[in-house]
Amino acid sequence: MKAPELTTLCYLEKDNKYLMMHRVKKENDINKDKYIGVGGHFEYGESPDECLMREVFEETGLTLTDYRARGIITFIYGEDVVEYMHLYTADGFEGEIGDCDEGELVWIDKDKVMDLDIWEGDKIFFDLLMKEQPYFSLKLVYSLEDELIDVRLDGHHI
Amino acid sequence: MKAPELTTLCYLEKDNKYLMMHRVKKENDINKDKYIGVGGHFEYGESPDECLMREVFEETGLTLTDYRARGIITFIYGEDVVEYMHLYTADGFEGEIGDCDEGELVWIDKDKVMDLDIWEGDKIFFDLLMKEQPYFSLKLVYSLEDELIDVRLDGHHI
Repeated sequence: MKAPELTTLCYLEKDNKYLMMHRVKKENDINKDKYIGVGGHFEYGESPDECLMREVFEETGLTLTDYRARGIITFIYGEDVVEYMHLYTADGFEGEIGDCDEGELVWIDKDKVMDLDIWEGDKIFFDLLMKEQPYFSLKLVYSLEDELIDVRLDGHHI
Repeated sequence: MKAPELTTLCYLEKDNKYLMMHRVKKENDINKDKYIGVGGHFEYGESPDECLMREVFEETGLTLTDYRARGIITFIYGEDVVEYMHLYTADGFEGEIGDCDEGELVWIDKDKVMDLDIWEGDKIFFDLLMKEQPYFSLKLVYSLEDELIDVRLDGHHI
């Protein structure tokens, strides 16, 4: 059993679009070719919001001025990966979007997001985000074949 | 550097009181003689709410039927302790309060909580709870002498 991973995941919002990262640049990437948000791992001693601000700046060049904590995702992948993803949306930010080492940044209409190559479970939390669900805990259990085999929202199967 | 600790901390509410645990039963307890909420460490793969339900049941005998995630506390103690405390309040529960190995359970009027022997930083989050602050991230940095040396709320010094 590896130590749990702690990460942030943020969807910037503008003109009814989300900023998505198309993960085409890294090899051996669990997210290879998928579209995900920006974010990354906590550095030692960081609070979730400190990690959020740093990662968004590092990956996009933008400084967040307004954001909301929307939920926490307990992501289980096979026997050895447990990741706690602190999920945010942000509609206030300053600066200019720059290049990112980890993927290509693209603004995607919110009503097109479900058509992208995204994780099956991400469709569930996008639905919760768009419905303005209050702060939630979503547990997503995947097999090593990327199949979503269990989903719980605030402790209940959905 | 030790791996960060992941915990839940819950304050049950009834008749304008909080259920507090007076930590008088364990030796070598970082919380020795202090009053805190109930809760404890995540088991491997648990979501925060799964940990919450289990720990509340183990420590009180009660099963939560209604609870709210209120915030996350990044607790830093000296150089080697980093703990992410998922903070909840709960006003719905079933069952009878039983004995607890870790301390004595007592209902305390909310307006008396500040007079108890509690961590300095806990006064800050009790204030936020009572003000109905939306989901917050509070970072509390303590010295090894239990002195609160830095406080940040959603990234800002307060």
